[in-house]
Amino acid sequence: MPEPKQPGKSKDSNIVSRGLERLRAAIAPPATLTPRRLTQIRQQLQECAEALGGEVSTRQRAARLAETYLGLDDAGRCEFLRLIAVEFGPDPAAVASAHAAYQAAVGSDAQWDAEAGLRLAVRSARIRILTQFNAIPQGVKFLVDMRADLLRHLDHEPQLAALDRELEARLGAWFDVGFLELQRITWNSPAVLLEKLIRYEAVHEIRSWDDLKNRLDSDRRLYAFFHPRMPLEPLIFVEVALTDHLADNVQQLLDVNAPVFDAQRADAAIFYSISNTQDGLRGVSFGNFLLKRVVDDLKRDFPRLKTFATLSPMPTLASWLRKHPEALADCGIALDIEALVAGAWQNDKAQQRTLRDRLPRLAARYLLEARKDGKPWDPVSRFHLGNGARIEQIDWLADTSEKGLRQSFGMMVNYLYDPDEIEDNVEAFARETRIASSATVRRLGRHEK
Amino acid sequence: MPEPKQPGKSKDSNIVSRGLERLRAAIAPPATLTPRRLTQIRQQLQECAEALGGEVSTRQRAARLAETYLGLDDAGRCEFLRLIAVEFGPDPAAVASAHAAYQAAVGSDAQWDAEAGLRLAVRSARIRILTQFNAIPQGVKFLVDMRADLLRHLDHEPQLAALDRELEARLGAWFDVGFLELQRITWNSPAVLLEKLIRYEAVHEIRSWDDLKNRLDSDRRLYAFFHPRMPLEPLIFVEVALTDHLADNVQQLLDVNAPVFDAQRADAAIFYSISNTQDGLRGVSFGNFLLKRVVDDLKRDFPRLKTFATLSPMPTLASWLRKHPEALADCGIALDIEALVAGAWQNDKAQQRTLRDRLPRLAARYLLEARKDGKPWDPVSRFHLGNGARIEQIDWLADTSEKGLRQSFGMMVNYLYDPDEIEDNVEAFARETRIASSATVRRLGRHEK
Amino acid sequence: MPEPKQPGKSKDSNIVSRGLERLRAAIAPPATLTPRRLTQIRQQLQECAEALGGEVSTRQRAARLAETYLGLDDAGRCEFLRLIAVEFGPDPAAVASAHAAYQAAVGSDAQWDAEAGLRLAVRSARIRILTQFNAIPQGVKFLVDMRADLLRHLDHEPQLAALDRELEARLGAWFDVGFLELQRITWNSPAVLLEKLIRYEAVHEIRSWDDLKNRLDSDRRLYAFFHPRMPLEPLIFVEVALTDHLADNVQQLLDVNAPVFDAQRADAAIFYSISNTQDGLRGVSFGNFLLKRVVDDLKRDFPRLKTFATLSPMPTLASWLRKHPEALADCGIALDIEALVAGAWQNDKAQQRTLRDRLPRLAARYLLEARKDGKPWDPVSRFHLGNGARIEQIDWLADTSEKGLRQSFGMMVNYLYDPDEIEDNVEAFARETRIASSATVRRLGRHEK
Amino acid sequence: MPEPKQPGKSKDSNIVSRGLERLRAAIAPPATLTPRRLTQIRQQLQECAEALGGEVSTRQRAARLAETYLGLDDAGRCEFLRLIAVEFGPDPAAVASAHAAYQAAVGSDAQWDAEAGLRLAVRSARIRILTQFNAIPQGVKFLVDMRADLLRHLDHEPQLAALDRELEARLGAWFDVGFLELQRITWNSPAVLLEKLIRYEAVHEIRSWDDLKNRLDSDRRLYAFFHPRMPLEPLIFVEVALTDHLADNVQQLLDVNAPVFDAQRADAAIFYSISNTQDGLRGVSFGNFLLKRVVDDLKRDFPRLKTFATLSPMPTLASWLRKHPEALADCGIALDIEALVAGAWQNDKAQQRTLRDRLPRLAARYLLEARKDGKPWDPVSRFHLGNGARIEQIDWLADTSEKGLRQSFGMMVNYLYDPDEIEDNVEAFARETRIASSATVRRLGRHEK
Repeated sequence: MPEPKQPGKSKDSNIVSRGLERLRAAIAPPATLTPRRLTQIRQQLQECAEALGGEVSTRQRAARLAETYLGLDDAGRCEFLRLIAVEFGPDPAAVASAHAAYQAAVGSDAQWDAEAGLRLAVRSARIRILTQFNAIPQGVKFLVDMRADLLRHLDHEPQLAALDRELEARLGAWFDVGFLELQRITWNSPAVLLEKLIRYEAVHEIRSWDDLKNRLDSDRRLYAFFHPRMPLEPLIFVEVALTDHLADNVQQLLDVNAPVFDAQRADAAIFYSISNTQDGLRGVSFGNFLLKRVVDDLKRDFPRLKTFATLSPMPTLASWLRKHPEALADCGIALDIEALVAGAWQNDKAQQRTLRDRLPRLAARYLLEARKDGKPWDPVSRFHLGNGARIEQIDWLADTSEKGLRQSFGMMVNYLYDPDEIEDNVEAFARETRIASSATVRRLGRHEK
Repeated sequence: MPEPKQPGKSKDSNIVSRGLERLRAAIAPPATLTPRRLTQIRQQLQECAEALGGEVSTRQRAARLAETYLGLDDAGRCEFLRLIAVEFGPDPAAVASAHAAYQAAVGSDAQWDAEAGLRLAVRSARIRILTQFNAIPQGVKFLVDMRADLLRHLDHEPQLAALDRELEARLGAWFDVGFLELQRITWNSPAVLLEKLIRYEAVHEIRSWDDLKNRLDSDRRLYAFFHPRMPLEPLIFVEVALTDHLADNVQQLLDVNAPVFDAQRADAAIFYSISNTQDGLRGVSFGNFLLKRVVDDLKRDFPRLKTFATLSPMPTLASWLRKHPEALADCGIALDIEALVAGAWQNDKAQQRTLRDRLPRLAARYLLEARKDGKPWDPVSRFHLGNGARIEQIDWLADTSEKGLRQSFGMMVNYLYDPDEIEDNVEAFARETRIASSATVRRLGRHEK
Repeated sequence: MPEPKQPGKSKDSNIVSRGLERLRAAIAPPATLTPRRLTQIRQQLQECAEALGGEVSTRQRAARLAETYLGLDDAGRCEFLRLIAVEFGPDPAAVASAHAAYQAAVGSDAQWDAEAGLRLAVRSARIRILTQFNAIPQGVKFLVDMRADLLRHLDHEPQLAALDRELEARLGAWFDVGFLELQRITWNSPAVLLEKLIRYEAVHEIRSWDDLKNRLDSDRRLYAFFHPRMPLEPLIFVEVALTDHLADNVQQLLDVNAPVFDAQRADAAIFYSISNTQDGLRGVSFGNFLLKRVVDDLKRDFPRLKTFATLSPMPTLASWLRKHPEALADCGIALDIEALVAGAWQNDKAQQRTLRDRLPRLAARYLLEARKDGKPWDPVSRFHLGNGARIEQIDWLADTSEKGLRQSFGMMVNYLYDPDEIEDNVEAFARETRIASSATVRRLGRHEK
Repeated sequence: MPEPKQPGKSKDSNIVSRGLERLRAAIAPPATLTPRRLTQIRQQLQECAEALGGEVSTRQRAARLAETYLGLDDAGRCEFLRLIAVEFGPDPAAVASAHAAYQAAVGSDAQWDAEAGLRLAVRSARIRILTQFNAIPQGVKFLVDMRADLLRHLDHEPQLAALDRELEARLGAWFDVGFLELQRITWNSPAVLLEKLIRYEAVHEIRSWDDLKNRLDSDRRLYAFFHPRMPLEPLIFVEVALTDHLADNVQQLLDVNAPVFDAQRADAAIFYSISNTQDGLRGVSFGNFLLKRVVDDLKRDFPRLKTFATLSPMPTLASWLRKHPEALADCGIALDIEALVAGAWQNDKAQQRTLRDRLPRLAARYLLEARKDGKPWDPVSRFHLGNGARIEQIDWLADTSEKGLRQSFGMMVNYLYDPDEIEDNVEAFARETRIASSATVRRLGRHEK
């Protein structure tokens, strides 16, 4: 997720986030965690876990603890999380005993109570504590952000693993797609929300309010998923262009001076940007539901739509190539990676002529063959193939921005969602990682004998 | 929870419930579950558990299964639930192996992954299946109602126990009070919602729309908790009268011809009815939070309020007395239970004179002394004492309805919420089941030597 | 407009009307207007007319005057209105002078300023004063109600005529149909609004909340027009039944125990009740726009609808007949009016057989021939014919309620709105009062030679 | 009203204005008005005036005519308006006859009907035609914009005068302050609305979205009036800074990098910008009501506020001085106007020292003495004095922008709204144009003898 691109002062007049902001402001600058403070926190966590004094006052205590957390610096937060992870887990002895009772009861009528008993023994106090943090204003957002903190420390703190899984499971229950609301976002939406799109857009940077307004014009659609307890905070959003062809150039789509297309004449919907916004929801997926619902909504408004496809980046083509440089020669490309990235070949007609056949060949092979742990190497490809799309077309000179050249030498790819084959594709991909693709792409990627 | 009292035809024009209604209507009358149908269902459940073909189509499959469930008769639904409970539990062998790995890892860095692994092994497919049912319109309400079904069968079907606990845990996560919305309900609220209050009121029956309108008048307040995914469906609601004294007679409160009190002059808020509405949420508590938030809201609107108290029934006084008939004589009461219930003594001045001292004494002893499993026998008393209230006053001839006589010989009780002592009361009750009470009530209940 | 039918106490918990209610309550009981008070009022009106002290304080002064008005009894209000009407009119001398200047300027460039000058001279202070009353809470409703008062006094107070026309013109500007909002009313609408429908229904009394709920069921629609400054106060509403035939019996439509029709199969929309609610808006018409918009809305939701028709009363058939008793004999009817109204003939098979031909003949002639000032005698007929409908069918035994017998011997009539002929009908009716009718009705009404 | 400052393409994705936009787009580019077209239009206007075929189809016809108007170029629109003005006025002969009848009836009971008759004769078909235009989407905005067109042509087309007054009167009725809604605008408001603030701000240009966000921060308030039929279209708006002193420098207020003031500590509310947005509503005033309601709202939210004052420009000081150059010498100022405007003196310490006494003296005299038609020369001064404010303080070097120097040599003025004297001030200003001012300002403006 990119850093905020909005210039200007740091103060935030956003009304909805005022709760957290005020808390944060109250304890600035971030404090280090002293041993004495740690002892206090341990004591408070203990009280939260025991829930003395009734649920209402327990929640109030938890809210104060959450404020403490927000006031800590990065190391302090890590220590706080480690404390919860290590000291509030299940009791191995109690687990052993519940497990013995369960195994003894298997097959008898007592099995079911014993099973519930084992599950209870395995349940830790951690999640009970964390759930209580939900009592602060914007508590859900707080826990999502806390998990984002946790994930950053997970690599070097293996003790956080069990806590992470528990938090992921709880967030997964809360963010069940049944609870999410699909909203269409327009130029009529609150500025505070639109500002977040500018900040969160992860694929093609939104450079200004004019750029954003263009993406909300009458030949565009922008949809996002929201959680009822995180208003004005999109979880994931997708940008769609309505057009009459399989769009193959993203600079054209983003050109604020391009004429507006009459959306009523559109027969194609191009998904040209999909951004996840909450790091803390890693592992909780809703992208496929988003696309499904967006397609339904578009079909209702524009019955003439026939084609639903993406215009997608290949974010890891260049990095893959650095590990497999021989692929260049295999495709008959004489330039090295740095030259391809630099892009000077765009101005050399002879080089262009040569590359216009060979670069797409390279991309096709990359998409069809490059694997990591048996799955497609490219993360975007993994997402769309897993959702039932097929690789439809390689687009040459489709994103000639610095980022486009750096990632994939200016190329992009269309994934096509064909309603008639989505379900088969999903299943074939899930069972045997079969990669669906068009005949053209397969021909392009074929190795001549 | 009482049966619906609304007369008239069964068709339901309620827009929000149309999703479920339509489903139900489609398969009427309730079908019995044939062996062949059972086999199909097992197969479908299997597919849901495996989630083949992607999440989107899995949810669609689950939706069809939910429709099937709704079309079954009571025995069929029980069998359906039993099938999920028994056949989609965890695998004891896998649990044993994960448990061994966990115990072996305790104390090492591997403990945390192993803990997560054990938790994964204990997790069953049941909840995964049930959660998918969330995809139907009003899926949350569907699961709440399904648990209500399950609870009715739990006594005679011990195999349902583990499933019940899992479902309770999941509903507990979804209905976390952080997600609930407090709403004030007025005569401006949708009729479809008001109609539900009439149906759900569990303490003092709402006899007509005029009766309801009276309870929403300017000297009254009615608040309810809602879940964002169950709109127009109150989870719990409380009725409040604004007045200038500790109300001691519920018939006066409910008299539609009584003059309206000027709420701006009120110094007391009397909670005279609290109704839980969803059987399927048994074990998921939010009553204490409701009272807390209602008090906050009232304080903001009526800064002169000093007293926050209930006017509560003693629903189990008579039934307790049937088990402890000696208590009557202990209090010097010569009438037997049936005579007390019949209420003819109300018209006999001599009897009234005698009972006016002795019945309240009986009630005070009942509240202070009658226990079940170490806790107060009376469920309403258990609820308010657990929330930090104290027993303030016994009200003689406070509810002379047939129901009031039958339950508690016409008596009611005020529980007082004194902000200064709530927290202490909660803790003392939680630790040692100490029952807080006023000096008057204690004196009343005292056994003379 | 019928009197309120709601039983019960008079106090009104309606939040939106609280402004007026509080004002009214403050000055109960209605006061008579003393000479001294009259002098004060004259003084205050003078100040309002002069608008001294700025617009803000003028409006505040007007608000106090409005409160005074609300506190007066009927005679006092009439005197108040007469005072405004007589003493705050235009100055005849100033009008004469402005008129002379205008006529002198006709034909020159000065004509246009002179015209504006004349219009200014004709403008009275009355409307300026009344408009200032708009400053009280619900000021628009106040002025509408004030005109209802005024209309009741108009007959015996000719001095109110000019004021009435000015007020009508101002209300006409405010209630321009461009400002009205069409809303569909359902069982999800606020109870306070539904209660008003019960009170305002002028054609077929709504007897209970169950009756109302039936009229809001899935095979029904109810639409109303609202003004943005009179929320929850319908101006006019229409009740529609979705069915598969030209409904010819209103008791069937209103039967709460009748099965619900599947609206998706409907090909006919029957407008069975249209009620104006605000006496004070007499002369301000929006009924035709209401029907137009309702038809548009129904067409969008139910594309299979082919027939748009009413099931209408003939409210003045019996009263017309009392003036033209010979019409009975002309139709071969031997019973006299009282006997027809009493309705005993319904139980006499022989009489029924005779009347079943002859009563409809009477009705057809009444609708086709009875005139008042050249227009149809029947007010409902005047309304629908003026909107472009045609008289389609006479319905025998269609409303056998006491009211139905009393007004029209149990008969009703369907007016049909045929999109292909509406515009022609409107124009032919406007130009030459041509009454559109079906061949059947014309044949029925024909006088044999 | 300044021109739109938003750069970028002309297409407008604004959903609310889509109705008009689509109409306009359909007939681009603006057409000239041919004689043949003019004849058609005359014919259509005639049909609108006669209202043949019913109100519904009349409105549809008017809508088509409105589209025609929108498609015309400026000269064509002027001709269209002239046509309505000249050919659809009242009939002088009919007016003469109605006037004669009126004068004859004065003093008799017939006077009141005759008065209504005269008013009817004076009423023209023009307003009936224009009102029908209300039927198009956003009809109210259409008429407001049409009057803006009309006002631009009024100078050179005296024939438009009567039409202008009629349209003003009708708009005055529609935009009665009783119908206006006060809304607070925040960073949570729709972007399409915020964008209009950027476009409409007439006092201190909003340079960017960051600038706007700063003006919506927690130490600021921005309020606007809206009409229910012109959503998202502010009629007038005011920008307020919450602070702890009488702000005397607008650049400080607009500095996006300035620290945010804690609004809870504010005791002063400074109105630093008030913008009317709709040229077509000239003569329809609501500025005084806006300030009144804003003050009420601020008092409720910030009970500690004591001072309500403006920081205002003197937009016509320099232009007045060009007509009265002797005032410079009278104040002992040696520089000429151009030198003062150029502002180089700001960098010359000696000149600064001299001017710092004398420029404020000049401003004080200008505000206290300069008149046009007996009223204060300065339009901003006229507005605030008419509303009951007093001239409180002259601010030296308060707006050193190019515009501030050009208009008033960098000076600004605070008008103070003191609740205790507002009403007196309004009345004294209305009666005798008495200018309220502080002792300091009076001393400053005094001419020494």
